[in-house]
Amino acid sequence: MTDIQKKALVFQSDFGLSDGAVSAMYGVAYSVDPTLKISDLTHDIPQYNVWEASYRLIQTVQFWPQGTVFVSVVDPGVGSARRSIAVETVTGQMIVTPDNGSITHIIRMLGIKEARLVVEAENHSPFAELSYTFHGRDVYAYVGARLAAGVSKLADIGPELDIDSLVQLNVVEAKRDDDSVTGTIDVLDVRFGSLWTNIPLELFKTLNIPVGGRVEVDIQHDTRAVYKNFLVYAKSFADVNVGESLVYLNSLSNMAVAINQGSFAQAYNIGTGTNWKIAMRKAPRLVYE
Amino acid sequence: MTDIQKKALVFQSDFGLSDGAVSAMYGVAYSVDPTLKISDLTHDIPQYNVWEASYRLIQTVQFWPQGTVFVSVVDPGVGSARRSIAVETVTGQMIVTPDNGSITHIIRMLGIKEARLVVEAENHSPFAELSYTFHGRDVYAYVGARLAAGVSKLADIGPELDIDSLVQLNVVEAKRDDDSVTGTIDVLDVRFGSLWTNIPLELFKTLNIPVGGRVEVDIQHDTRAVYKNFLVYAKSFADVNVGESLVYLNSLSNMAVAINQGSFAQAYNIGTGTNWKIAMRKAPRLVYE
Amino acid sequence: MTDIQKKALVFQSDFGLSDGAVSAMYGVAYSVDPTLKISDLTHDIPQYNVWEASYRLIQTVQFWPQGTVFVSVVDPGVGSARRSIAVETVTGQMIVTPDNGSITHIIRMLGIKEARLVVEAENHSPFAELSYTFHGRDVYAYVGARLAAGVSKLADIGPELDIDSLVQLNVVEAKRDDDSVTGTIDVLDVRFGSLWTNIPLELFKTLNIPVGGRVEVDIQHDTRAVYKNFLVYAKSFADVNVGESLVYLNSLSNMAVAINQGSFAQAYNIGTGTNWKIAMRKAPRLVYE
Repeated sequence: MTDIQKKALVFQSDFGLSDGAVSAMYGVAYSVDPTLKISDLTHDIPQYNVWEASYRLIQTVQFWPQGTVFVSVVDPGVGSARRSIAVETVTGQMIVTPDNGSITHIIRMLGIKEARLVVEAENHSPFAELSYTFHGRDVYAYVGARLAAGVSKLADIGPELDIDSLVQLNVVEAKRDDDSVTGTIDVLDVRFGSLWTNIPLELFKTLNIPVGGRVEVDIQHDTRAVYKNFLVYAKSFADVNVGESLVYLNSLSNMAVAINQGSFAQAYNIGTGTNWKIAMRKAPRLVYE
Repeated sequence: MTDIQKKALVFQSDFGLSDGAVSAMYGVAYSVDPTLKISDLTHDIPQYNVWEASYRLIQTVQFWPQGTVFVSVVDPGVGSARRSIAVETVTGQMIVTPDNGSITHIIRMLGIKEARLVVEAENHSPFAELSYTFHGRDVYAYVGARLAAGVSKLADIGPELDIDSLVQLNVVEAKRDDDSVTGTIDVLDVRFGSLWTNIPLELFKTLNIPVGGRVEVDIQHDTRAVYKNFLVYAKSFADVNVGESLVYLNSLSNMAVAINQGSFAQAYNIGTGTNWKIAMRKAPRLVYE
Repeated sequence: MTDIQKKALVFQSDFGLSDGAVSAMYGVAYSVDPTLKISDLTHDIPQYNVWEASYRLIQTVQFWPQGTVFVSVVDPGVGSARRSIAVETVTGQMIVTPDNGSITHIIRMLGIKEARLVVEAENHSPFAELSYTFHGRDVYAYVGARLAAGVSKLADIGPELDIDSLVQLNVVEAKRDDDSVTGTIDVLDVRFGSLWTNIPLELFKTLNIPVGGRVEVDIQHDTRAVYKNFLVYAKSFADVNVGESLVYLNSLSNMAVAINQGSFAQAYNIGTGTNWKIAMRKAPRLVYE
């Protein structure tokens, strides 16, 4: 098998990069095949935050070549009876992960064409005894490396699973309500403090707000009103003043809210999750009399 | 020399990743051989903390293929007469590092079969003048790259050194005392706040505590009692409730203490080092009358 | 084209590593050529800080082989009319970046031999529609990957630009004044808190201070005196006591100020930029009577 046929291997976890855990995973993978091409999605997923793991996968997977193997290890249930799975997306990337909701967004927004059970007793690194607390190293990195190296095919990993049987997190769909669209704040653009909503461009377009027009944005946390204001719908940050807020289309083709060169999330203490609702509608015409 | 014969090169330092220091090391290594496979153990070792550098090596080295070259640069003595060394472990990995205790755990727990002096005047990058403050770039990355690329053999690096002459940090051994085992808290699992002790499973087993049984854990800092409680000895986090504390076997086969989905270290303000003692014994039978 | 002819690709940004942005850039680049060798300079540039992006490039670029392609994306003007450029340094490395001053130090200290306009409409990833907010993924990673893979030559990227037309940040030159040299504090060695000045060794040498001699160091922020003391000019940190301050030659051959195993920047609350002036002169002879 030539290098060109080998596929990239991409790791994601909540381990951080301050100790040796991620590098031990690299070592196990290179022990399977020293010519693999390995890189990191992120290891800064907040501990046990399966939702964010799921979101970072949908943000990234589709930009990688067919056959790329993602290993995502956010695994609060390690050592329990939770299943381990290897799946292939309809766009041809593979993901090896605990079956705990880590591929919720991938299932909904990209689609899965095949899912296999990873039988841990048969799929663990011979380089280490199977530990009870670190399946990232002993199972997931090993299985991912074998898939990326072409040593295993997906069908070799274990019995096929019904896609409907895969664990999914609860997701609220954005929807049109009278004259507004409502959704949730799914995730932050961590470094820049922008809010990424689950409102797709297509839904937003039903409001008929032109680029340059104004949007009324309401944000609510549970029953508490957190923010209400009129924002310009801008093509890019450069279209508004430094310090000005804007509504824009993010790099996943969903609507987002930001402050140009500031942090919207910090400015208004805004968090993420299904309890954080956001509504957008065409701003009223302001008439000064 | 084909790619397959080339060995992986792994960098560790206390430089952080916020400036160009680590990338300059990559550049020097790729200048030796542009086809090398380079990755990072961690660059978040706390500044000058040779103990933690040593621990992260023992946590990682053994999971990498034979011939892998580690370059570890935590170097408070740069510019002084401290020696630079290149060593080979009994399991066949190489480590290039200042001789300041950075391989203490490797010497004790894995073993060294050969050690060579790196003569800096003869082993520095031709791509840069030898600086007085950045041997990571000018010496260690360069020597490590030559070893990984197969341009130098270990024996070419410099005169052989007596393994007993290598600098070692002071280590306290775990031991059995009457009805308890005592050791030290060596390091934290940084992200999850678990305590990793130096008590090996074999020693713990002499207490005859079955999985599911209870362990009395005492933690002392110098002469101050910090923590005392009865904890379950669990196979994995999933065996206890969320928020419950446990004793478990970590991924290095030593005993560890954690809170399931919490941080034990933060909860009780616990640090690491030989002044942090931990004792474990079989918990007494509790009889309610 | 064999692997050896392919060039390394190095990414820098202010995106951080906590979400999927950087990995999406990797995916786009590997979609151009799955055999590329990609690594990171840093993604911790403070948001929108073009000055620091420029400094990290000059700290790193010269240590990489000829033909290496750097992609630097600190891009407050994304979506505006700011140009995108690809340049080649006189030492043979290439840099793809917004034309916003990110190569100021490279132009001044290393030199550019050719600059090309990146016509975004013709140079964006076919793997994604061109977004208005993430040219790092859609334009820069794509163009950088094509150059590194040898799919495009620099001359193919777009029309040649006059090097004098490239945007440069305002830089103050260090100079000799009577009996002192004065300059600015350009950047911090982030992890260790050392001050890196723009005073080159050659200029400092005109003061005739021998190694081991003492330097009077004055630091001023705008019109406020911040620090004044006599420091030893040491070859390396190991020449002074732990906790002692020193003047030394940094790894870029400029003068720097530090506390051995402490943080000078934190100790005296010192920042960076052209408003932070530093003067050095030969310390007076101290006579106790």
